[in-house]
Amino acid sequence: MITDARPWGGAAADIRLIDGVIAEVLPPGTVPQAGETLIEGRGRILLPSFADVHVHLDSTRLGLPFREHTGVPGVWGMMLNDRANWRSAETSIAERTTETLGRMVAHGTTSVRSYAQVDVDAGLERLHGVLAAREAHRDRATVEVIAFPQAGLLREEGSFELLEEAMRQGADVVGGIDPCLLDRDPAKHLDLVFGLAERFDAPIDIHLHEPDQLAKFSAELIVERTRALGMTGRVTISHGYGLGQLPHAQLVPLLEQFAELDIAWATIAPATPLPTLLIAEHGIRLGLGEDGQRDYWSPYGNGDMLDRTWQLAFTNNFRRDEDIEHCVAVATIGGRSVLGTAPALRGHLDRPGVAVGDPADLQLITGETVTSAVMDRLPDRTVVFRGAVVADGLELSAAA
Amino acid sequence: MITDARPWGGAAADIRLIDGVIAEVLPPGTVPQAGETLIEGRGRILLPSFADVHVHLDSTRLGLPFREHTGVPGVWGMMLNDRANWRSAETSIAERTTETLGRMVAHGTTSVRSYAQVDVDAGLERLHGVLAAREAHRDRATVEVIAFPQAGLLREEGSFELLEEAMRQGADVVGGIDPCLLDRDPAKHLDLVFGLAERFDAPIDIHLHEPDQLAKFSAELIVERTRALGMTGRVTISHGYGLGQLPHAQLVPLLEQFAELDIAWATIAPATPLPTLLIAEHGIRLGLGEDGQRDYWSPYGNGDMLDRTWQLAFTNNFRRDEDIEHCVAVATIGGRSVLGTAPALRGHLDRPGVAVGDPADLQLITGETVTSAVMDRLPDRTVVFRGAVVADGLELSAAA
Repeated sequence: MITDARPWGGAAADIRLIDGVIAEVLPPGTVPQAGETLIEGRGRILLPSFADVHVHLDSTRLGLPFREHTGVPGVWGMMLNDRANWRSAETSIAERTTETLGRMVAHGTTSVRSYAQVDVDAGLERLHGVLAAREAHRDRATVEVIAFPQAGLLREEGSFELLEEAMRQGADVVGGIDPCLLDRDPAKHLDLVFGLAERFDAPIDIHLHEPDQLAKFSAELIVERTRALGMTGRVTISHGYGLGQLPHAQLVPLLEQFAELDIAWATIAPATPLPTLLIAEHGIRLGLGEDGQRDYWSPYGNGDMLDRTWQLAFTNNFRRDEDIEHCVAVATIGGRSVLGTAPALRGHLDRPGVAVGDPADLQLITGETVTSAVMDRLPDRTVVFRGAVVADGLELSAAA
Repeated sequence: MITDARPWGGAAADIRLIDGVIAEVLPPGTVPQAGETLIEGRGRILLPSFADVHVHLDSTRLGLPFREHTGVPGVWGMMLNDRANWRSAETSIAERTTETLGRMVAHGTTSVRSYAQVDVDAGLERLHGVLAAREAHRDRATVEVIAFPQAGLLREEGSFELLEEAMRQGADVVGGIDPCLLDRDPAKHLDLVFGLAERFDAPIDIHLHEPDQLAKFSAELIVERTRALGMTGRVTISHGYGLGQLPHAQLVPLLEQFAELDIAWATIAPATPLPTLLIAEHGIRLGLGEDGQRDYWSPYGNGDMLDRTWQLAFTNNFRRDEDIEHCVAVATIGGRSVLGTAPALRGHLDRPGVAVGDPADLQLITGETVTSAVMDRLPDRTVVFRGAVVADGLELSAAA
């Protein structure tokens, strides 16, 4: 039982957790049952734990010596820079991903969808690293793995066969990327991705860095295939920066199709934000992620989704408390909705995820209100996964 | 003497400070002179201390109970919301500003240019509050105060007379705001501002929130008056969001005029950034500020300029180490250049402010490199003002 906690910053309550689920929300000061384990809320705010649904665990350098950034702008140049350097890191991929996933849990994340780059250079080594991290933290977090063709499917011989093999060896989601700009044959790229997903009965996640009208074209190709193959509810578009640049009159029909086909969206809170509230008004599943974590692509990303939630609020220029709370909802239940473990956030505020029947995947954070907690991002946090404390004060619990 | 410090993250050195100035940069392990006070660098990075050159100390609510945001978008609506609420804060303006200025010093800021709103509602009460804070921290920071007509000069009878009285009572800088959109008579607004500045031989700082072509028009009016009145080097434009939206072909001639007339620029690192590197290439003095600090305008702003430096880097999508170091230069020496106590940052990287002859206004921060320190924003910091430690571990020193 969590004692003296304030769900979404509201009135204090005691929260009884049974079998990994919130069983009762009780008045504060409830007498514990015999043998009941107590988790001290100490008046902190109770929220659903974070879901990071766009993270490249397989390139992390968190915890390793800081390395000067050597990438050049552009997806292909960045990929080549990563390719030239990742093998010479101080520790193995498995060690790095395990360390970083632990850090994410320690900061409040218990649901993760991570990329594992699969290409002719890495083969399946990076996939195996992410799978090892998942196994190491299986009692601390739920992890989905995306087999991700970062280098495209058509540029290098053998790329597709490796992606197929990655799905066979335990990846959960088929990845795709910039169908126009990277492989330069969008129909063929998407047909390969959708075909593989159909064969493995797997969801799809497609990185879309393309600009404005090109992003619109690629999104339409994705919509067409989602509809034709009956993949409603199984496709996620990641980034989609360019869609956010579209005129309102072009964006809205696209959002309506996303809603119709239940196409989800994952954002990393870039400086030029997506239309966050408009997406919610359409009932589209929207989740948040960190992207890279101090890796060969960028020095940003630190394992802390509370930081990234602040970033989502800041980039949207949100000031009203209910808007900032909506960002917390996106970073928690929004991410779970992308993973299919929670419903979409319909509309703009509903403080979800802490009612009877919800999973006991929770976090306690410090603050007077949810908004002030996002602004302050303090370290006194407790993380609960399936009813058990897995981290406290930004450190993993020994017991977990 | 600061021992074992790494200027801008370079090789360790001992730094001898005499009479508030860096007197010698010596090899590490130098034997101290008899009676010399030692400041332990412990291998930390040595940087110039921060300069916050755009902060509204007089509206801060940092340290007070968190208050739900009640503002409505737009300068006038936000001003009215502030006006309706600021008097009912839990403590006086003088107490709040003193508390917040102390917090800023504790986080590494020792040069400040703060607004003090002067209008028919507040009279000079807010000015007196900021002056009291300056006096309370006179041995910890240098503070310039801008008499700031937040409500315009032409909309409410008596506004200009109050601004004049504020200059008489100790304000250092004459403020102005949105000459077109707020007072709706740009020539008259600017003539009043420039006239007052001429009379008091004072610098000028003008808030410019206006969009694209309107911002360009207002900037041109400012340029014309700066030239006509021989006020080269005495004018700062704050925000200037709209100028950053101009086509390159329109922006560059404006930047050339800013450079010619040495017009400075203060930014708060908004999500849509100014062209930071282009400004530096033109040798224009650019400083950074926090704007509001958890006040009636916004919940953002926490007294920590290292956080705001991260924000400047993030919004510019900077990843290269030298670009992120440039942001630190803007937040330190760039701000001092706006205040006239350091030269402009010419070009894009020069790691200034820690050589012999530079003021002993310094900070020690934790990190492997300057970039990693900006990413991590760790609390083990030491702040030095005029050669004396004024803060340590985010707390003011008792001695100072």
